[in-house]
Amino acid sequence: MTATPAELRAMSRALELGAGVLGTTSPNPAVGAVVLAPDGTPVGEGATAPPGGPHAEVAALAQAGERARGGTVVVTLEPCAHTGRTGPCADALVAAGVGRVVVAVPEPTELAGGGADRLRAAGVDVELGVGREEAEDGALAAWLTGVRSHRPFVVWKVAATLDGRVAAADGTSRWITGDQARAAVHRLRATCDAVVVGSGTAVTDDPQLTVRDADGRPAARQPLRVVADRRGRLPAGARVLDDAAPTHVSRAATPGELLAELFDRDARRVLLEGGPTLAAAFLRDGLVDEAVVHLAPTLLGAGPSLVGDLGIRTIADALRFGIADLIPLGGDVQIRLRPTRHTGGRQSADGGS
Amino acid sequence: MTATPAELRAMSRALELGAGVLGTTSPNPAVGAVVLAPDGTPVGEGATAPPGGPHAEVAALAQAGERARGGTVVVTLEPCAHTGRTGPCADALVAAGVGRVVVAVPEPTELAGGGADRLRAAGVDVELGVGREEAEDGALAAWLTGVRSHRPFVVWKVAATLDGRVAAADGTSRWITGDQARAAVHRLRATCDAVVVGSGTAVTDDPQLTVRDADGRPAARQPLRVVADRRGRLPAGARVLDDAAPTHVSRAATPGELLAELFDRDARRVLLEGGPTLAAAFLRDGLVDEAVVHLAPTLLGAGPSLVGDLGIRTIADALRFGIADLIPLGGDVQIRLRPTRHTGGRQSADGGS
Repeated sequence: MTATPAELRAMSRALELGAGVLGTTSPNPAVGAVVLAPDGTPVGEGATAPPGGPHAEVAALAQAGERARGGTVVVTLEPCAHTGRTGPCADALVAAGVGRVVVAVPEPTELAGGGADRLRAAGVDVELGVGREEAEDGALAAWLTGVRSHRPFVVWKVAATLDGRVAAADGTSRWITGDQARAAVHRLRATCDAVVVGSGTAVTDDPQLTVRDADGRPAARQPLRVVADRRGRLPAGARVLDDAAPTHVSRAATPGELLAELFDRDARRVLLEGGPTLAAAFLRDGLVDEAVVHLAPTLLGAGPSLVGDLGIRTIADALRFGIADLIPLGGDVQIRLRPTRHTGGRQSADGGS
Repeated sequence: MTATPAELRAMSRALELGAGVLGTTSPNPAVGAVVLAPDGTPVGEGATAPPGGPHAEVAALAQAGERARGGTVVVTLEPCAHTGRTGPCADALVAAGVGRVVVAVPEPTELAGGGADRLRAAGVDVELGVGREEAEDGALAAWLTGVRSHRPFVVWKVAATLDGRVAAADGTSRWITGDQARAAVHRLRATCDAVVVGSGTAVTDDPQLTVRDADGRPAARQPLRVVADRRGRLPAGARVLDDAAPTHVSRAATPGELLAELFDRDARRVLLEGGPTLAAAFLRDGLVDEAVVHLAPTLLGAGPSLVGDLGIRTIADALRFGIADLIPLGGDVQIRLRPTRHTGGRQSADGGS
């Protein structure tokens, strides 16, 4: 595939625009789009609006107006060719007189598919696959998981000490990490459609599970709060049941069942906030797509571990991840990980330590 | 204090030179020195030789020869004024006709003190404290701990999974981390005078504890291998007792006693390699000066934790560290930490999670 430097820069910006609306578009994908005038100047940009609102390309075209004619639209997902709550984006692009469309990820669904074909039939040049990997790993990952696996994408977030403790021996856990790490958790919640805890965490920590800013003010949009409460242990006075955000108390017997319930409620990106028992259940069932681990530079020497029993007996069977990124966060460390396929023990010719 | 840009650059290089001989100079400090000609050009550099050999300034002067006359010597530690196994460095600097000496760390001992005074008496300009903090935290930290606390500096090294496990449920631990992390451990051992394990680790893992390169070839200089074996459990056939390096089996009852034995054997920088029980004993007694934690992006969900019971019951009493640096190491993560004074729980106005 070929893309001009201006198109590559525009794609990079489109990826940012898509990431910026993550958590506000489900069940639709978080798409970003940039319109370039015929001379390569950016003249419009857009991102998917909340459901029922315009798609990214349409928003970007509206901003560009007549300057889009003969220009290029750079978009992270192939424009749709179907009429849903909004008309087909492919038709809007043709109507705007666009000469070329550069796409990161080809449309994976049968229903919406065909945008590129419809554009080409109308004489528009279409380039597919520019920046595809970055787009698939980024803002589109959650939506693609929904399309391919019919379940939400699961981000597991946990805060622990260096020795992997999520609480001290007496059960106290406020605070393991510092202000900046806790602020990052609120930003992470804002990118998700639902935030899940087990009834154990809901009872012990009594979290509110809302998205708040540094001053404690709640965000306008709140993800669905979810308590996995198979045995009906959640007390009526729990903070998670207050009116600060909607709450779903689930009696699902398995993580898969719980995710199916959330998928039916249009959740595409779910934040799993623990505790160790629930996290272990999701990990055992292969239902964690990303892990965000906040490590405090502290030691406790006792207390519950960040993950419960995984049924693993020997080192070769360890659950393996790849590190996506590693950043200092105030005095703490954030490690973002993606699971890797199990490859067996890491062997070496070296005879010993 | 004032130092020219050329002198600051030379100090930065002198710090590197000192760090380069860490682990080879004890009981002497790992010092680096650079000689600048009168026009500011570097004309000689040196670092402390093994005990009995020349000090850094003398080595640097030898390389500079006549070009040192009227020039500046930049050195990480105040030149000595006493005659030990070598003559006073201050006299060598005067004899070389040096016009100025720039020093990072003032000599802290009574015995060797007075180099600056002797230089000034001979008409040499002396600047103290340039780059002092970096020097004190770097290659001179171990020696300074010896001077101030009459014990070796202790680096605790541990390799664990994300959930803080140092072995799986069945006791297997080879390998938690990958090749690059293990190679870093060998480089770390090379900077130390002694490597300490508990008898539990010596029995369970049967490590050789030598410094080897990637092909398994032993380094020419090997640190003293030390087994804390209060109860005499080390079997005669243990690999740590082979002839690859000297070994000290200690019956010391406490970490302090063990460190006293090693200090008497001229060790100034000691690597504590575990296991969890021994690490906890050192941590409880406040005898860890630096921690090097290698974290593998894996989960086990069971198995021994990286540190044993610290007697800590509640979160506010957690043992706290500051992160000195954070680097990816192959597929793993290295976090280097220094203990911070206990400051109580980190509180916040935020009402809940």
